Amino acid sequence: MGRTYLTPEHHTKRIERIEEQLNDDELETLLVFNSKNIFYLTGLSFIPTERPIILILHRGEVNFFVPSLEIDHIEHQVPFVSQIFSYFEYPDEKHPMYHLANNLMNDLKIQPNKVASEAAGASGYWGYKGPSLEDVTGLKFKLLPDMIMDMRVIKEPEEIELMRESSKWADRAHKYLQEFTEIGANEIDITIRASTQGSQDMVQELGDAYRPTGFSMFPAIALYRGQIGPNSYFPHALSRGLTFNKGDTLVTGASSDVYGIHSELERTMFMGNPTDRQKVLFDAMMAAQDAALEAAGPGVKCADVDKAARDAFKAKDVFHLVRHHTGHALGMEGHERPFLDIGSEDVLQPGMIFSCEPGIYEQGLGGFRHSDTFVVTEDGIEVTTKYPRELSELIIE
Amino acid sequence: MGRTYLTPEHHTKRIERIEEQLNDDELETLLVFNSKNIFYLTGLSFIPTERPIILILHRGEVNFFVPSLEIDHIEHQVPFVSQIFSYFEYPDEKHPMYHLANNLMNDLKIQPNKVASEAAGASGYWGYKGPSLEDVTGLKFKLLPDMIMDMRVIKEPEEIELMRESSKWADRAHKYLQEFTEIGANEIDITIRASTQGSQDMVQELGDAYRPTGFSMFPAIALYRGQIGPNSYFPHALSRGLTFNKGDTLVTGASSDVYGIHSELERTMFMGNPTDRQKVLFDAMMAAQDAALEAAGPGVKCADVDKAARDAFKAKDVFHLVRHHTGHALGMEGHERPFLDIGSEDVLQPGMIFSCEPGIYEQGLGGFRHSDTFVVTEDGIEVTTKYPRELSELIIE
Repeated sequence: MGRTYLTPEHHTKRIERIEEQLNDDELETLLVFNSKNIFYLTGLSFIPTERPIILILHRGEVNFFVPSLEIDHIEHQVPFVSQIFSYFEYPDEKHPMYHLANNLMNDLKIQPNKVASEAAGASGYWGYKGPSLEDVTGLKFKLLPDMIMDMRVIKEPEEIELMRESSKWADRAHKYLQEFTEIGANEIDITIRASTQGSQDMVQELGDAYRPTGFSMFPAIALYRGQIGPNSYFPHALSRGLTFNKGDTLVTGASSDVYGIHSELERTMFMGNPTDRQKVLFDAMMAAQDAALEAAGPGVKCADVDKAARDAFKAKDVFHLVRHHTGHALGMEGHERPFLDIGSEDVLQPGMIFSCEPGIYEQGLGGFRHSDTFVVTEDGIEVTTKYPRELSELIIE
Repeated sequence: MGRTYLTPEHHTKRIERIEEQLNDDELETLLVFNSKNIFYLTGLSFIPTERPIILILHRGEVNFFVPSLEIDHIEHQVPFVSQIFSYFEYPDEKHPMYHLANNLMNDLKIQPNKVASEAAGASGYWGYKGPSLEDVTGLKFKLLPDMIMDMRVIKEPEEIELMRESSKWADRAHKYLQEFTEIGANEIDITIRASTQGSQDMVQELGDAYRPTGFSMFPAIALYRGQIGPNSYFPHALSRGLTFNKGDTLVTGASSDVYGIHSELERTMFMGNPTDRQKVLFDAMMAAQDAALEAAGPGVKCADVDKAARDAFKAKDVFHLVRHHTGHALGMEGHERPFLDIGSEDVLQPGMIFSCEPGIYEQGLGGFRHSDTFVVTEDGIEVTTKYPRELSELIIE
């Protein structure tokens, strides 16, 4: 069994790295609003709502500002918390941001020119409205919207272990998706059956080692989202409750949530033996994915990985069927920076994790796209999704 | 069978209402970025990513600005579209926002002082970075972040019909949740089984009338999210894979997605006969919910509905166990403005839809909260969730 969660010690090491950067910039205080960033640094998972929840790193201490419904939740989840400041509710008779101003100015005594924030204020999520940090404190906050996101670009060895585990359960759920798919079935039914079975396997086999964060309802998922037959022509189709017919080209998706880390696995499959045209387009897609994976490695430009896939499509004379770039980074979010895109100026570095998913789309026939997850290593790449990818393995009789 | 979707005619009527407001403000152009607002106006559902997707209402025409992977998707979903402007990909060699500037300035010839936008630019979702509308066009856009959200506050009769249908399937899924729950079972397993069965019922019984928008993987859900036994003390607990024990207090949740509209149903249940203390707290919660529903109606202040629940808790001497206000509006989002909160200055109006969910939380014992969905009518309220709510109906033997 691989790694399935991180410990408080992992989180405090991340906070130490942030503190070092703050010290280098002669800053004492950082306010973090993004819920994924708060989880990344502290292990606190919560349901983001209109009620502001703010992590306040201040002179080496980990403090929170939260609504009353989250106070005990934090004590329970974050053993290294120092102070929890709270307000009763949003909107309430006194807006939460004025409570925050009081905590920052009087309790923490933050200093001008030494305070930074991810955002100018809480976001307009779920009906929230409110004043900015500057409005309520009279202080200028140095805005560092990318500081933690930039740190998340390079995954630590432990995160890569989580990604391997996530890939394993994506593979498992996908196995059920392929097994259950049959002519006449409804895509929604097959999706929930495969996800149910994959999730039950995951929960039972991992036992106490499985520590759900609550970000996903299903531990493991394998799904169709409308990419069935001619409708698979739409790269980002959405589920329409379609049924499977003989001759259909299918594009699938699978993932699992391992301590907030999500792999990405997609396969092109066929309902019965593919036609010559389906084979041609499948082979072109495979050639492009092979070329991109071949090109990828430490020190390589993201643009050059995309270029490798584009060149492969051009060589097969199907470049006019391309609708998107080759891939994107991923981890806690479905898509992250950087992108495997001809316009990217980024370079692949050890610890980065990407999807590799060059695709082509022919109207009337469908979409042709595999997606696999790979990690950049010191001397190459490691593909973490292991699901069969050859044509002969992806035909549903 | 109730209403399960809206037609293009419903959407064009909404657009006409927006056009009227724009005319009143002597505006010709509005850019809409929020994906839910785009669905609300046009019926286009899509997967929001780092690639900007913008609805451009311009002199009575409905135009889109989209990445190449969405072009045909829009032609397929929005029969009344005028022009589709596109860019290949994000980030690409030329940033999409410069393509947009060209479309706005040269194709649509937008005029200074006649352009408005929901936002200053595309959001930083999933790794996106980019310049503002002003940066790329040199024009000032009038910012109207709340225009469409404000329109969504009052639900049309058709939307209320969707909410009734959503409530019906939330009730159904919850029935399975209660039936399947048993001592020793894992909450994740019961959640996915109940949601699977509820969704299968919904898909089969609605047949062609069911038009999934793709916003939700499950058509209907009924879940535990960690609110089991002492852990139900945390109002926003998250699933931890807990098992059910005799004596547990449970707090559930259920909903279903009917054309993007979601009801809210929650119940407090008990594993076996409740203790005297469990009964006292259950009764206090019921008294507060009764008081709030009794107080609610057209012309009533949101604050007064919250006050009614607070007064009921005070009368039972349990106000110190309260951790949040009485409810929130809902519709396409889980929470929307306005809030049933002592600090709200809003007034209930016919067509508004709210959750009613006063709750109390005792450490070591658990949480006590029912949530029901109600619509404000011309002469009162209509509770759309019908699930049994009396103590005797919520004991799992």
